[in-house]
Amino acid sequence: MPAFDEAASRVGPPDAAAAEEARRRHDRLTKPAGSLGRLEDAGVRLCAIAGFCPPPVPQPAAVGVFAGDHGVLAEGVSPWPQEVTAQMVANFCAGGAAVNVLAAHVGADVIVVDVGVAGDLPAHPRLRSAKVRRGTANLADGPAMTLSEARQALDVGAQLAAGLAESGTRCLLTGDMGIGNTTPSAALIAALTGRAALEVTGRGTGIDDERWAVKVRVVESAVSRAGDVTDPVELLATIGGLEIAALAGFVIGGAAARLPVLLDGVIAGAAALVATAILPECAGYLFAGHRSTEPGATAALDHLELKPLIDLDLRLGEGTGACLALPVLQGAAKILRDMATFESAGVTEDHG
Amino acid sequence: MPAFDEAASRVGPPDAAAAEEARRRHDRLTKPAGSLGRLEDAGVRLCAIAGFCPPPVPQPAAVGVFAGDHGVLAEGVSPWPQEVTAQMVANFCAGGAAVNVLAAHVGADVIVVDVGVAGDLPAHPRLRSAKVRRGTANLADGPAMTLSEARQALDVGAQLAAGLAESGTRCLLTGDMGIGNTTPSAALIAALTGRAALEVTGRGTGIDDERWAVKVRVVESAVSRAGDVTDPVELLATIGGLEIAALAGFVIGGAAARLPVLLDGVIAGAAALVATAILPECAGYLFAGHRSTEPGATAALDHLELKPLIDLDLRLGEGTGACLALPVLQGAAKILRDMATFESAGVTEDHG
Repeated sequence: MPAFDEAASRVGPPDAAAAEEARRRHDRLTKPAGSLGRLEDAGVRLCAIAGFCPPPVPQPAAVGVFAGDHGVLAEGVSPWPQEVTAQMVANFCAGGAAVNVLAAHVGADVIVVDVGVAGDLPAHPRLRSAKVRRGTANLADGPAMTLSEARQALDVGAQLAAGLAESGTRCLLTGDMGIGNTTPSAALIAALTGRAALEVTGRGTGIDDERWAVKVRVVESAVSRAGDVTDPVELLATIGGLEIAALAGFVIGGAAARLPVLLDGVIAGAAALVATAILPECAGYLFAGHRSTEPGATAALDHLELKPLIDLDLRLGEGTGACLALPVLQGAAKILRDMATFESAGVTEDHG
Repeated sequence: MPAFDEAASRVGPPDAAAAEEARRRHDRLTKPAGSLGRLEDAGVRLCAIAGFCPPPVPQPAAVGVFAGDHGVLAEGVSPWPQEVTAQMVANFCAGGAAVNVLAAHVGADVIVVDVGVAGDLPAHPRLRSAKVRRGTANLADGPAMTLSEARQALDVGAQLAAGLAESGTRCLLTGDMGIGNTTPSAALIAALTGRAALEVTGRGTGIDDERWAVKVRVVESAVSRAGDVTDPVELLATIGGLEIAALAGFVIGGAAARLPVLLDGVIAGAAALVATAILPECAGYLFAGHRSTEPGATAALDHLELKPLIDLDLRLGEGTGACLALPVLQGAAKILRDMATFESAGVTEDHG
């Protein structure tokens, strides 16, 4: 069975009994009930994902940075040339990019996966070669890729998740690289949330009004062309990207392994929408690392009913926002594991 | 010279040239300009504080947890009995409280300071005894403490900051413990921001409507009684708390040592308002760890023009929100220190 289908067949719902046990435990810890706010919610969800309480600390963690190129770049949606995707992959391998710095800071591994970079990439221990094709076709002219290519890319992501889980990784972080990839992300978000292109199309790496207007038109026409596509995998093939498809597979692979999946920004948001459209149960395994300033990111989070752990106006991608959020998630687990209870500490409870 | 006066005499403005150098460096790093949002701003401010770029990573870090009791508890402003302050100090010493768990998680030391706990506390290596008095007087009846006691408490905080700086600590985090201390905090915030008691008085550890109405009346009358007090130290004495005064001294001590001071929640917000009222220059050394759900916290942050690094609906205090934010601040420094530039990585810049 292909890795993706195998993963999808194994995803079950999070464990409600473990969540309830975590809620009860929170109320016995030496703090006013509920006073750790959304950190408590995160701890409860980690228990539901693991199936027991206290939950394992989400550590070691790994960022899967999936890279791909985009034929839609020909429409002028980004000021950055396509070669930058490959150059940044080299930068990830050398350890000089933002995601390397922040991943090292929080103790997460970085695994770079070439799922569809246009150029050739020299071999590197940090780089996995899983090129499905050399960049997508221009989604403004026709489908970005074939259905078979979309499935292959889903497999690439699911395979990485399964391999990481098998080698003991306890938390998956999503990362991405692909010049032009906010355009297919906006298209997928519009198609899957029902929002207008104008609402979900942002400035990506920072584009001017003219280029933005072009981008909105490209997204509008892509969404309209995909209007009668109901199958999420076909939607990926029609208006998606190779790294987005791989990320959707990564998300479902993480859920299959009962691991928390910490999403980065707007590209991850698009991938998570696709993953939950394929398999709604995987939503229970997702955490939003941060809220990107890209408007599509907020639309995706709203649709996924996720609140971000960090909100610092980031819009870089690569997995940087997920890395910054990892210590928060780990802290949520340690609160449940390590705090004293009222009884054990001899602390008097409130008098109502 | 008393520790506080000595510290206050040494506080200078942050270094604008180092900040400008950091901005220029950010624009050379391999990422779209400005794409790390407020993480970039934090890095710029760390350079301004240190006086050079890249800035030192704010590490090692220490949480100063100042503990004191409050005579105003007699008014029924909290459902927790006064003895819980001492019990929680014992819990901090034993390592079982939330601040212990989160400080250990982020690699920060916890130093507990008894600046005004009512009861006797057994000696412990983690506890510094600097009791100025056994809890404040009831601020609903008269001044919470004398001017001399307020100055002594300021000294306690400034002394701890100076000692930590001398032993190599590179980041100060604020923490607090004191049953009833959201009441004097709300009073100080109302007095120093000009907001109404109703706007800045919250539910603290979680009180019902009836108790909250009592608390609002207590805050209103305290603020009205302090109406003609213009000297911030006299304000502390009139409607403050011993741990709040110590925290104000800690803030100014940190600024004097040119260290970043990472504020926790509403108690820290009140202390920071007092500190900046005494010495406006210390504002440049402050970072808001998080936004407490206490309404006074937001009022204080607005007045201080600080945006929180974390916003997770916490309302525990102890320093927990500051601990959760520490990895973000450290990440901001590492971005400036460790990322590759466009030149060094051979990455093409955008074509505008």
